[in-house]
Amino acid sequence: MPEYKAPLRDIRFVMHEVLESEKLYQTLPGYEEATAELMDAIVDEGAKFCENVLAPLNQVGDEQGCKWSEEGVKTPDGFADAYKQYVENGWPALSAEPDDGGQGMPNLLGMVMSEMMGSSNWSWGMYPGLSHGAIKTIEAHGTPEQKEAYLTKLVAGEWTGTMCLTEAHCGTDLGLLRSKAEPQADGSYAITGTKIFISAGEHDMADNIVHIVLARLPDAPEGTKGISLFIVPKFLPTADGGVGERNGVTCGSIEKKMGIKASATCVMNFDNAKGFLIGPANKGLACMFTFMNTARLGTAVQGLAHAEQSYQGALAYARERLAMRSVSGPKNPDGPADPIIVHPDVRRMLLTQKAFAEGGRAFIYYLTQLGDVVQNGDEEAAKQADDLMALLTPIAKAFLTEVGYEAANHGVQVFGGHGYISEWGMEQIVRDCRISMLYEGTTGVQAIDLIGRKVLGSGGKLLMNFTAIVDEFCKANTDDAMKPFIDALAGYNKEWLELTMKIGEKAMQNPEEAAAASVDYLMYSGYVTLAYFWARMAVVAQAKVAAGEGDASFYEAKLMTARFYFDRLLPRAAMHKECLLSGADNLLDMPEALFAF
Amino acid sequence: MPEYKAPLRDIRFVMHEVLESEKLYQTLPGYEEATAELMDAIVDEGAKFCENVLAPLNQVGDEQGCKWSEEGVKTPDGFADAYKQYVENGWPALSAEPDDGGQGMPNLLGMVMSEMMGSSNWSWGMYPGLSHGAIKTIEAHGTPEQKEAYLTKLVAGEWTGTMCLTEAHCGTDLGLLRSKAEPQADGSYAITGTKIFISAGEHDMADNIVHIVLARLPDAPEGTKGISLFIVPKFLPTADGGVGERNGVTCGSIEKKMGIKASATCVMNFDNAKGFLIGPANKGLACMFTFMNTARLGTAVQGLAHAEQSYQGALAYARERLAMRSVSGPKNPDGPADPIIVHPDVRRMLLTQKAFAEGGRAFIYYLTQLGDVVQNGDEEAAKQADDLMALLTPIAKAFLTEVGYEAANHGVQVFGGHGYISEWGMEQIVRDCRISMLYEGTTGVQAIDLIGRKVLGSGGKLLMNFTAIVDEFCKANTDDAMKPFIDALAGYNKEWLELTMKIGEKAMQNPEEAAAASVDYLMYSGYVTLAYFWARMAVVAQAKVAAGEGDASFYEAKLMTARFYFDRLLPRAAMHKECLLSGADNLLDMPEALFAF
Repeated sequence: MPEYKAPLRDIRFVMHEVLESEKLYQTLPGYEEATAELMDAIVDEGAKFCENVLAPLNQVGDEQGCKWSEEGVKTPDGFADAYKQYVENGWPALSAEPDDGGQGMPNLLGMVMSEMMGSSNWSWGMYPGLSHGAIKTIEAHGTPEQKEAYLTKLVAGEWTGTMCLTEAHCGTDLGLLRSKAEPQADGSYAITGTKIFISAGEHDMADNIVHIVLARLPDAPEGTKGISLFIVPKFLPTADGGVGERNGVTCGSIEKKMGIKASATCVMNFDNAKGFLIGPANKGLACMFTFMNTARLGTAVQGLAHAEQSYQGALAYARERLAMRSVSGPKNPDGPADPIIVHPDVRRMLLTQKAFAEGGRAFIYYLTQLGDVVQNGDEEAAKQADDLMALLTPIAKAFLTEVGYEAANHGVQVFGGHGYISEWGMEQIVRDCRISMLYEGTTGVQAIDLIGRKVLGSGGKLLMNFTAIVDEFCKANTDDAMKPFIDALAGYNKEWLELTMKIGEKAMQNPEEAAAASVDYLMYSGYVTLAYFWARMAVVAQAKVAAGEGDASFYEAKLMTARFYFDRLLPRAAMHKECLLSGADNLLDMPEALFAF
Repeated sequence: MPEYKAPLRDIRFVMHEVLESEKLYQTLPGYEEATAELMDAIVDEGAKFCENVLAPLNQVGDEQGCKWSEEGVKTPDGFADAYKQYVENGWPALSAEPDDGGQGMPNLLGMVMSEMMGSSNWSWGMYPGLSHGAIKTIEAHGTPEQKEAYLTKLVAGEWTGTMCLTEAHCGTDLGLLRSKAEPQADGSYAITGTKIFISAGEHDMADNIVHIVLARLPDAPEGTKGISLFIVPKFLPTADGGVGERNGVTCGSIEKKMGIKASATCVMNFDNAKGFLIGPANKGLACMFTFMNTARLGTAVQGLAHAEQSYQGALAYARERLAMRSVSGPKNPDGPADPIIVHPDVRRMLLTQKAFAEGGRAFIYYLTQLGDVVQNGDEEAAKQADDLMALLTPIAKAFLTEVGYEAANHGVQVFGGHGYISEWGMEQIVRDCRISMLYEGTTGVQAIDLIGRKVLGSGGKLLMNFTAIVDEFCKANTDDAMKPFIDALAGYNKEWLELTMKIGEKAMQNPEEAAAASVDYLMYSGYVTLAYFWARMAVVAQAKVAAGEGDASFYEAKLMTARFYFDRLLPRAAMHKECLLSGADNLLDMPEALFAF
């Protein structure tokens, strides 16, 4: 199993040198305590927990999986203990609101922790991670009584939460859902229906589980406008905050699946379970959209987490494994062969992983910092940040999970045949990562959201907000050493708008044109966006090198990785451009009956 | 689990209409019996066996896996019975030499069978498939006595074979191997060593297993020039062709791995096992190279097999699953939503699978037919065919498995979250397929073979053999309807040579340049080669449509898929071109110490 070491140097580089987090937080009310020193201390502590407690449970979790019985779900050995430590050390409350018992630290710190937990043990991280939706729902839409009863427990991590959306016949298309909520005399609702794919729906790590359930009131309109949200706890809370009567919600089974085997994916049966309406009737989907961006970022980070995890494993192996000689002469003349890291194609795979992990880190942290501005910034700044998040979140979610999966696969490939053997831990990363392109909206769903709702739906404005930032960055950086990066970035940035105009024009004639371009458009946008972050990192690194500040080798490595990104990964943008410009006909002309004979 | 139906219409299209197999075989001595009618009858029978016997065992095989004990390896329920039927029906002997008890049918028929077996149950197919190397080794290098003792048993399928190459510390770099062969007084050798990754190394499906083992004689030179081949049977044969004394070769354990779980991947311990030298001493690797191309084709077909299998599953689901409405208005107005095949991006994924499966079929069958010419053609024709195979086989192996894996992943993606659940069978295809890019030489190894040994090593001649064929094809097809395909293909064909010259020139200064370009060069070559096969298929289809012959809808679908390939997949070639032209520095400049901090 690959050993995990939190990439602290790079985390600090992104937080302090690229995003200048301290400077931002000093101006955001409520985050003034978040000095660089405190942030580093917290991250260091979190790194120890991830390296020493979570990482050693990753492979055993995959081997054992979860065990279902009528009594509930047993998580793998060590999972519940690790969760106990996590709660005792106060991690669940890190970025939560002080009013609800949280520590009020920036969400950025929570995201750094998510990355490290994800790289060490993604399955484990899903149990606390799934509370996020429940917390956000109750924070935004709960009554004071609901907050009192549930929120502090969730924030403290004593209880965990879930989001119960999907039914067997509908995932993406929630308008089709059938679960029912019947009003009861006491003001509560009797919830009946079956939900599937409920992560952390049942487990043995916490005393209670708070389900947020989408269901229909008896008189609800059809489709998405007739969906309401309900709180349905596993155990009804007692007046003094304890765990009371068992509610009519049970886990019918857990799924056997490709990966994240230590994360219980539950079929949840609601049989006249007592539920409590949260938020306005029939506005459930709209309420959920209020935290859609942060929920998606919570999945986007999976791409980064697995790219990092797989890179660490592959790099260690490439340094040790001896095979063949370098074509330009032995590099390890005293050994029987050279370490495979001398071979250019092994380096190509390693650098691809590295470029996606480090670029993804900058991208995700940037978005999370925008989320902090949305939450605590002044109205204008919050609006700007929210608009940027609206544009960039579907890109981050889909693009970073797609390239994270590619990176995970390179990790297997570096190991050769050994990569396919479970013992080494590399194939588990591929299996664990594969879900990231599916849940929380597939790549295709993110792509339609991007091109339809966000870009064309705003008349291009949301995109222009960002291209203006890129443009400004390009104009501000005229250092000769940066010219290759800046010229390429500026060119793509301009082309991005031109391409968007072309699709927009075609889509006015035929809306299928936007849908047909969508995934290529998203991937194009992803490569250009990542080029912006690589250019930003290069500018910072180049300035340090020029000034002779800090560890020159770190900054030189950053510059070389940036060059690799521009030379060998960014050219994919042009390929996506050509595909998306090819139009909808090559997808739609084929009558359905002609797909097979 | 997706149902498997052999794509008989398309198989016939490639055999009869594109490759005109009957015409070829009528002129190849020994294959005269292979009329179109007979070939179809054999394929039809094979299809029934695959659909009805093998496909139903695919999922259960994955669930049960193989069980190791001191007594041996138990394969999943039904596997041994299916093998018995396979042997009783004479399938092992289909393409083998009549002198050895074979039926002497073209290898093409064996390949069609391999494809269908692979699409229905890849793991099962590995047991008979692994005999191939042993058969070819003994055919080419065995003494009459060795042929008498082993070959007829292997050809009849009564016994199976293996190739024991890899050791824990070396796979690609076989020069490092350590297994020893000590000469014995009776002329045999005592073989000692441990081999890993031995597929079908131990199982309960046949009476005996014939291992071909690479080992070193006591006085052998170091490296690849000191390796010899030995026959090491599990049971020593008796004089009358029966199974005699147990030999000192045992299966120490089987690997727990990502997929192909029903295929036993064995650690084989040789403890003074009795072995018999086959072929000249110290020439073992050279002997193996004689059938390297056909062995690699046997893996290349895995890409095609899984693309087809995944496509069939995804297509059926996309026709049934209802979600959202078509953006251009409901296509299933009486239902609650439209089937997802109406959505352009779902079609993009399906067409990608289809284009790779059908294109890969033409590519693989073409190469297999070349193999038949090598085997039974006159000297000049055989030499030409062999040269083409030398060039195209590494492309087929690496490119078709890479795109096959992509296709398998699209199949999961079409299913959304359900694709991740084992029950549907789609994620198994991804896991089973992942090995294909690793064994029988990784993608990187194929790429070095292509650019180094084959293309630059022949001074470009092997490549020019093929580009001349493509050129001739382009010049011969001037139909207006074909112009977009032909123009694009002719352009790439020319560019392929130009690119090769550029790399060749750079590599003369620095051999790292070829290695740094290798995988992008191989993928470029793959997309161009597949464009040739798509253009060939389009020309045939267009002629049929123009003449009003046959089922017009089949040919129209073929033309639309060709268009999709040229519009949406071929543009990747340009991206690979840009990457490979970016040179070696962006891979080699980074000192090893700077890969992580």
